[in-house]
Amino acid sequence: MAQAGLNMSRRIRRTPYTDRVEAHGVRGFSVVNHMLLPKAFQPDVEDDYFHLRSNVQIWDVAVQRQVQITGQDAARLVQMMTPRDISAAVTGQCLYLPLIDQNAGMLNDPVLLKLGEDSFWLSIADSDILLWANGIAVGHGLNVAVEEPDVSPLAIQGPKAEAVMTSLFGPDIAALGHFRFGIFDVLGTRQLIARSGYSKQGGFEIYLQDGALGSALWDLIWDAGTDYDIRPGCPNLIERIEGGLMSYGNEFTRDNNPLECGFGPLCHLGDDIDYIGKAALRKLAERGPQRLLRGLKFGGGPTPPCGKPFPVTCDDGQVVGQITSGIYSPRLGCNVGMSMVEKSHWDFGTRLYVHTPDGAVRDATVEPFPF
Amino acid sequence: MAQAGLNMSRRIRRTPYTDRVEAHGVRGFSVVNHMLLPKAFQPDVEDDYFHLRSNVQIWDVAVQRQVQITGQDAARLVQMMTPRDISAAVTGQCLYLPLIDQNAGMLNDPVLLKLGEDSFWLSIADSDILLWANGIAVGHGLNVAVEEPDVSPLAIQGPKAEAVMTSLFGPDIAALGHFRFGIFDVLGTRQLIARSGYSKQGGFEIYLQDGALGSALWDLIWDAGTDYDIRPGCPNLIERIEGGLMSYGNEFTRDNNPLECGFGPLCHLGDDIDYIGKAALRKLAERGPQRLLRGLKFGGGPTPPCGKPFPVTCDDGQVVGQITSGIYSPRLGCNVGMSMVEKSHWDFGTRLYVHTPDGAVRDATVEPFPF
Repeated sequence: MAQAGLNMSRRIRRTPYTDRVEAHGVRGFSVVNHMLLPKAFQPDVEDDYFHLRSNVQIWDVAVQRQVQITGQDAARLVQMMTPRDISAAVTGQCLYLPLIDQNAGMLNDPVLLKLGEDSFWLSIADSDILLWANGIAVGHGLNVAVEEPDVSPLAIQGPKAEAVMTSLFGPDIAALGHFRFGIFDVLGTRQLIARSGYSKQGGFEIYLQDGALGSALWDLIWDAGTDYDIRPGCPNLIERIEGGLMSYGNEFTRDNNPLECGFGPLCHLGDDIDYIGKAALRKLAERGPQRLLRGLKFGGGPTPPCGKPFPVTCDDGQVVGQITSGIYSPRLGCNVGMSMVEKSHWDFGTRLYVHTPDGAVRDATVEPFPF
Repeated sequence: MAQAGLNMSRRIRRTPYTDRVEAHGVRGFSVVNHMLLPKAFQPDVEDDYFHLRSNVQIWDVAVQRQVQITGQDAARLVQMMTPRDISAAVTGQCLYLPLIDQNAGMLNDPVLLKLGEDSFWLSIADSDILLWANGIAVGHGLNVAVEEPDVSPLAIQGPKAEAVMTSLFGPDIAALGHFRFGIFDVLGTRQLIARSGYSKQGGFEIYLQDGALGSALWDLIWDAGTDYDIRPGCPNLIERIEGGLMSYGNEFTRDNNPLECGFGPLCHLGDDIDYIGKAALRKLAERGPQRLLRGLKFGGGPTPPCGKPFPVTCDDGQVVGQITSGIYSPRLGCNVGMSMVEKSHWDFGTRLYVHTPDGAVRDATVEPFPF
C-alpha cells in the first residue's frame, strides 16, 4: 500500500505554512519530528522533478526543527554529540554532521548552524535530538539551555531561486557562500537565511522566527516568484536519490555507524577532541566499514512504491543489501535507488538484482552519485 | 482537512501486524514513535465504538514501543525519570507514570513494567524516550543498557476479551489482576501478557517478543475470537475521551507539568526519593496547578474533525482552554472533548463555549470523567 489516509490531530503538528500548502491542494503528507511534511502536489512527482530542475519551488520544511543549544557549555555539548571536529567552525557557517551514541550508532544527521560562540542550532532529521542533548546536559550538569525555539524553515529551491531571492533581498543574498548564512530584513523583522536545502538544484532556506508570519512569508516569496514560474513543492524523491541525499530512518538508523553512511572523512579520531562514542568508532575504523551506502540504477520499468525495502541480491542469490528509497527516473529512463551494500559487492559497476513487490527481479548496477 | 494521504517509507515503520491490518481494509493511520498506528476501519468510528463496548477487538498497538532498561543502575535510572515513587513496585506490576524534565515539563506518560529488580520496560507514548534515558545514563555514567527490543504489543480489548483469552491460555489469564502481567505459552514461545490497554472496556495486551510471529499471533487471536464477533479495531476516539484517557502531544506537551495533567496524587515530593525536576515540581506544587485537564460535553450536532484545537471561552469571551481531542458521541447525543481549563473555570458544571471551525459557538459544560 503506497498511500493511506493520515488522521489529523494536534499531536501531528501543523506548521506555519500548512494553511497555504492546503490551499495549494497538497495531496499527501509524511510525518517528521511530530509535524506535517508535504509530500505530493499535483500533477505528480515526475512533473515536479522536471520543474525543480529548471525553475524555482517553495517548500514547507518546518519539520526541520531546531534544537537550540545556548550557554557557557554549548560548544562543549555540541562537540560531545558528534565525531566531526567543530573547533574551527565560524559564526555564520552551516556544517552537516553525524550525531552518534556511545556505540557509534547514528542518531541523526543534522545541519549545525553556528549562531555565535555560545549559541547553536541543530537543524534535525526525524528523531527527538532535544531529548538526547538535554539528557546529556542534565547528566553531565552542563551549563546550557536546550530548547526548541519558534523557528520554521521555508526552502526556496531550484536554479531560479537566486533570482527570486535577489529580487526581494538585494545583491547581498547572492553573495552568500554555500552553507553560509546571514541575517536579512524580512517583513520588517530580522531573519536568518542560509544558502542550503535538501536538493542539489541550489537554493536558500529562511529560518523564520515567529510562526505568526508564516502565511505572510509564503505570500511574499510566492508573489516574487510568479515571474519565474514558482510552484509549491517538497523534497523530491527522484531528485534526492539522484543527488545521493540520504534520509535518516530510511537509508540508515541507529543500527548503522557513520562510516557506513559515508561520514568517514568527517570523523575525527585523534586525541585532541573528545565525544561520546569515540572509543567505539575507533574500533570500527580500525576494521573499516563492512557495508556502504550506494546508489543503484535498476531496470524493468517503473517500480511499485518503496513502502517496504526491496531486497538486493548478487549472482549467487545471497542478499547483499536492500533498496530503502527507490523510484523511476523519467530523465534516466530507469529506476534509481539507495542501498547499504556489503563490502563484497560495493564496487562501482557491480551487477546486482533488485526484487520488487510485483514479483519482478530487476537487473541493477552499483553507480557513483550523483546520477 | 481531516484526512490526507500518508506517504509510506521505511522511516514510517511497519509493524509485525501491518500485513493483517491492511488485509482487513484499514482506512487510515496515524504515526506514533516513527511507526504506523491504524486509526480507522470500516464502517466508521461510531459503529466501532458500540462494537468495542459490547464485544471484543484486536488492536495493533505495536507503536507502544518498549524502552528496555537493564543493569545494576536500572531502578535508579527509572526513578530519576519520574516523580512517582517506584520503590515499592513488585515484579509483575505495571505502573502508569509521568516522565518529566528538569523544569517538570512532561516528556511522556508510559506504563512501566517491572520485569525484575534490574530490568524494566517503559511502554511509551509518542516521544523518543530511549534518547532521553540513554542521554541521562551516558551523562551520569550509569551501569545500564538502554535499548528498544523486538517487542510489539497486540491489544485484545472489550468485555469479551477475557473469554477469548481464557479459551486460548486457560484460567490463569482470568486470574491476572488489573495492571499485572504474567508469562504464558503462546505459539510455542513464552510471552508476557498484561491485563491492561488503552480503553476502559477491559482487556489484555500481549507484548509479543519476536516480530516474525506477528501474523501467526494475529491469526491465533482472530480464530479464537470468531465465536465472539471479534473485529479489527484501534484506540477509539469516542471511547477514549469518555473514559478520560489523555494522549501525549494532544492533551499535554512539554509545556505542561504533571499536576496539570492530573498526576498530582502520584507525585512524590518528599526527601526520601530524588529525581530530575523535583525542585521545579516542588515550586509548582506550592503554588498549586493553574489549569487542569477537564472533560467537556458540548452541543450543536457533530463537530468537524479536531485537527486544530478548538478555542474554549467563558461568558466574558476570554479564552480559558482549547479542545485538543473532540468528537460526537452517538450514545450521549452530544460532543465530548478534553481541554486544559484555567483554574477560574475548571469547576464541574461551569458553562463554557466551544468554537468549532464551521463557525459555530457551542454551549459546553465541564464534567467529571468518565462520561
